[in-house]
Amino acid sequence: MAAYQDDNIFARILRGEIPSIKLFDLPEAIAIMDVMPQSPGHCLVIPKAASRNLLDADGETLATLLPLTSRLARAVKQAMHADGIVVKQYNEEPAGQTVFHLHIHIVPIYAGKDLTSHAGKMADFGELSAQADLIRTAFEAPS
Amino acid sequence: MAAYQDDNIFARILRGEIPSIKLFDLPEAIAIMDVMPQSPGHCLVIPKAASRNLLDADGETLATLLPLTSRLARAVKQAMHADGIVVKQYNEEPAGQTVFHLHIHIVPIYAGKDLTSHAGKMADFGELSAQADLIRTAFEAPS
Repeated sequence: MAAYQDDNIFARILRGEIPSIKLFDLPEAIAIMDVMPQSPGHCLVIPKAASRNLLDADGETLATLLPLTSRLARAVKQAMHADGIVVKQYNEEPAGQTVFHLHIHIVPIYAGKDLTSHAGKMADFGELSAQADLIRTAFEAPS
Repeated sequence: MAAYQDDNIFARILRGEIPSIKLFDLPEAIAIMDVMPQSPGHCLVIPKAASRNLLDADGETLATLLPLTSRLARAVKQAMHADGIVVKQYNEEPAGQTVFHLHIHIVPIYAGKDLTSHAGKMADFGELSAQADLIRTAFEAPS
């Protein structure tokens, strides 16, 4: 497997070199809105530790990711009134990985509506921000 | 969200009421071959604790799942000579969930080959067993 390269877009977002719409910023991970969403509310959980994907991530990082993903998925479903959630994670280019820093996709599903193909087009920044406000509120609400 | 029903197929597999091709059986989870694989080597990680999906699983269960998924994904990639791995997890019926006990799909990707549609057709039992032998060996090998 190729080595981790620290000039990937998520490493740059983690370093604050490029902007993102953050949903949370915790010691272990951040979550951000996907700027090329497959559906409204599509977001990403990105661990702070450097790994290329799931195949080379350390155990401690892996242990923290799914509890955070679950909590955010619940918040997304509630905030966006989604009918379901698909969680996806791609490893290596033939599998669809395009950014080589481990990340987990949370994709809301709306009954009767197809997904947009991944990396289709940039979403409206104002819309993403409004969705992020709703998701953040649901994420931070006591469960 | 609908309550957990303990007559689902994975609960029955966990209770030993119906057979499966197991890759491991650990205190927290089992892994089995998917009998309607999307590609050769497609397998599932299934926690023993009862939850409907990612949205209602407890934190302790969630913390154990991704380290196991990572280790098994590495084994599958190596054993099956796959070019990549997609990890998928479906929550609720509109999102494609068909068995209502939390499970994570590990789907090997082979460059230039399309996936079979999910739940397309039953795989040959002998082929699945042969794949499982290879994956088990890779899973148990010291890394």
